[in-house]
Amino acid sequence: MSQIPYKIYLTEEEMPKAWYNLRADMKNKPAPLLNPGTHEPMKAEELGGVFCEELVKQELDNTTPYFDIPEEILGFYKMYRPSPLVRAYCLEKKLGTPAKIYYKFEGNNTSGSHKLNSAIAQAYYAKKQGLKGVTTETGAGQWGTALSMACAYLGLDCKVYMVKVSYEQKPFRREVMRTYGASVTPSPSMETEVGKKILAEHPGTTGSLGCAISEAVEVATTTEGYRYVLGSVLNQVLLHQSIIGLETKAALDKYGVKPDIIIGCAGGGSNLGGLIAPFMGEKLRGEADYRIIAVEPASCPSLTRGKYAYDFCDTGMVCPLAKMYTLGSGFIPAPNHAGGLRYHGMSSVLSQLYDDGLMEATSVKQTDVFEAAETFARVEGILPAPESSHAIKVAIDEALKCKETGEEKTIVFGLTGTGYFDMVAYEKFHDGQMTDYIPTDEELQASFDKLPKMD
Amino acid sequence: MSQIPYKIYLTEEEMPKAWYNLRADMKNKPAPLLNPGTHEPMKAEELGGVFCEELVKQELDNTTPYFDIPEEILGFYKMYRPSPLVRAYCLEKKLGTPAKIYYKFEGNNTSGSHKLNSAIAQAYYAKKQGLKGVTTETGAGQWGTALSMACAYLGLDCKVYMVKVSYEQKPFRREVMRTYGASVTPSPSMETEVGKKILAEHPGTTGSLGCAISEAVEVATTTEGYRYVLGSVLNQVLLHQSIIGLETKAALDKYGVKPDIIIGCAGGGSNLGGLIAPFMGEKLRGEADYRIIAVEPASCPSLTRGKYAYDFCDTGMVCPLAKMYTLGSGFIPAPNHAGGLRYHGMSSVLSQLYDDGLMEATSVKQTDVFEAAETFARVEGILPAPESSHAIKVAIDEALKCKETGEEKTIVFGLTGTGYFDMVAYEKFHDGQMTDYIPTDEELQASFDKLPKMD
Repeated sequence: MSQIPYKIYLTEEEMPKAWYNLRADMKNKPAPLLNPGTHEPMKAEELGGVFCEELVKQELDNTTPYFDIPEEILGFYKMYRPSPLVRAYCLEKKLGTPAKIYYKFEGNNTSGSHKLNSAIAQAYYAKKQGLKGVTTETGAGQWGTALSMACAYLGLDCKVYMVKVSYEQKPFRREVMRTYGASVTPSPSMETEVGKKILAEHPGTTGSLGCAISEAVEVATTTEGYRYVLGSVLNQVLLHQSIIGLETKAALDKYGVKPDIIIGCAGGGSNLGGLIAPFMGEKLRGEADYRIIAVEPASCPSLTRGKYAYDFCDTGMVCPLAKMYTLGSGFIPAPNHAGGLRYHGMSSVLSQLYDDGLMEATSVKQTDVFEAAETFARVEGILPAPESSHAIKVAIDEALKCKETGEEKTIVFGLTGTGYFDMVAYEKFHDGQMTDYIPTDEELQASFDKLPKMD
Repeated sequence: MSQIPYKIYLTEEEMPKAWYNLRADMKNKPAPLLNPGTHEPMKAEELGGVFCEELVKQELDNTTPYFDIPEEILGFYKMYRPSPLVRAYCLEKKLGTPAKIYYKFEGNNTSGSHKLNSAIAQAYYAKKQGLKGVTTETGAGQWGTALSMACAYLGLDCKVYMVKVSYEQKPFRREVMRTYGASVTPSPSMETEVGKKILAEHPGTTGSLGCAISEAVEVATTTEGYRYVLGSVLNQVLLHQSIIGLETKAALDKYGVKPDIIIGCAGGGSNLGGLIAPFMGEKLRGEADYRIIAVEPASCPSLTRGKYAYDFCDTGMVCPLAKMYTLGSGFIPAPNHAGGLRYHGMSSVLSQLYDDGLMEATSVKQTDVFEAAETFARVEGILPAPESSHAIKVAIDEALKCKETGEEKTIVFGLTGTGYFDMVAYEKFHDGQMTDYIPTDEELQASFDKLPKMD
């Protein structure tokens, strides 16, 4: 029996004191955000109308490798961090694999996911700037919950636009957000111009992250003392989420463990970008090599079937243009229970790394994902979120390959959160009513045809 | 700033290797279970029809101070334990109190509570005895979930009778149990003789733990290869739950901290009995003194308004008689969202300790409890279960008293679980629709009048 404990916790002293900015080590920097009118790179003063000043600086900084984490945020982190790096002894035994499986579990806080890591940072800078409140969108509800928690802690107002399909499937999420004092509106709504427009064009739509972003941005930019904050995709979010990877690496280093494969689910990229940051940094600097795998749902496969192109971040086309792997900002994925992975595009940082061949991507079917989730839950005692279960599925597949080959690979994956608010989806799975949806090539092409024409 | 971290985790090596049997140190032992027909103490062979052999031994042993935890259970414990002992710095700051507040947080596992500590032990002994499965009741659903998890892990069949009011208010709990392969029936049901009888006498009843116990026991004793397991009240459960207190004490000792006040919510007594075990042991041996406070709901006040008498453990009167503080086994509390605290009686061990003046008890109103829960959630980042929030309420009250007097008391309370499946109750609270129910003296007297007549 190995000396490695089931759960590795860093001490408070060992916790990272600075976020790592992966962009500083990238040879090919992520493409800049463009002004949708002029197609010129967005300037800090333009972005300042949407985001807080300090966050704009973080967003645009491609060279500073480390940003000190402010003392107040470190204090908040200590409330729910460090998160455990778990050695999945029980899963290994169940699979009969020689592989060594670890997962970084980010679900032990009320938001139920890693989203709190960036929520507190963004709320902190908004507060520091003297703002009254923030607006945002939420898919599965984890980001909205996280932001509500951060805002309640700091005394900021919080307005959340929640993707309608999640709002309906996760009624209790709304109450958690209300417990933290947030207002929650199902999106698309009739409260905004862009919401009205989307509803007119797609009556009965179940919404998407892209729609909800448009609504939240509209409210932020038309209400005094408010700014918009986003839970994924942006460079600043990946910066804050680097805490996940930094802790993971510190925990592995403590026991002299070097991973072979690092796996994360990918919607907008916040979890994956954070988890892989320091490992990818080593890879970029030529200090180490790792297989890094992004896992996305077959129903919303931006990396594996998307185009690498400039596109709108939102359905309403009110946001800047970002270069990313995208299915087109008009793509509204079929109702898929992994609400947090229903985004049409992918972080510019991750898109560039993928395009440079520095990481792999794969897509998996929902029913396979839930089967993996159930296997995992029964042996590891944690009921995983559907999003996280995409990573579980691929981790299990890789571990089973090791069983065939006899290789003792070390696999690390991100377990971003818990599925306590996803029981409607689990119920469908148990009742055999869950279906898999895979968009057709024609459907994707029609969406690609609407990509903005660049000069 | 103190050197004590926000969260104290024991290492795996520091985790307790044996359960502590508080009864061994009690001068006045808890009264024995009696045969309901003869009123003679129940013999091991009689109890063996209901419980596993090994658990019967643990139930009846009032002298052995420590029971080694089997290796397989220790392994399972390592999957989700040690649980953190949290220093509530943020709550202290919010309250402006000089008191030092700690809470032992048992909610970081999918059952959402401390119940898993005894579930795995009971399932393990059932498996070891070669049984096919177990039956049980569940109130809030936490015990049922815990048992489902333990049974899934060991490959045992699991039949759960769930108090109807919780079954209806917590539909998602059922799906969690199904994820772990359990069958779940709302109680009272038409599946058992006792269920039919209760429904005939109380049509439209929302059920109680007492009813559900009767049904589960009936099924266990009439089905080949099955035994009944119980999540609270019993001596064996308090023994297993001593892991909570042992870890708490080890964590405090590590930093040289001695508590002044120890607070726990009390339904059947599993959490409170486990949390206080080693502290009460010191008190019984004259080695230390602590104020120990049991907190119960005003709607179901067995310690503060009950009688200390022999009573049935269940509504259907199929179980042995236990001497305990009781509201009468016929008492069906008003629908109360703290489902886990809706039991008419209290552990015989705790009842004896209370009767001997070794601990205090207090009852609190539900609306006050939810107010405390929300205060706690906003600063400590954990959405507490309504049950646990009873302890939070009294911990806050004690901390505020310290603010008045300037005393720097050290308060430790048990945070037994999370409230993710209690959002219906939180919603009622937010909407101002939550009411407080306090039984009248006449109502209680009518219930006391039906207590079994002893010779």
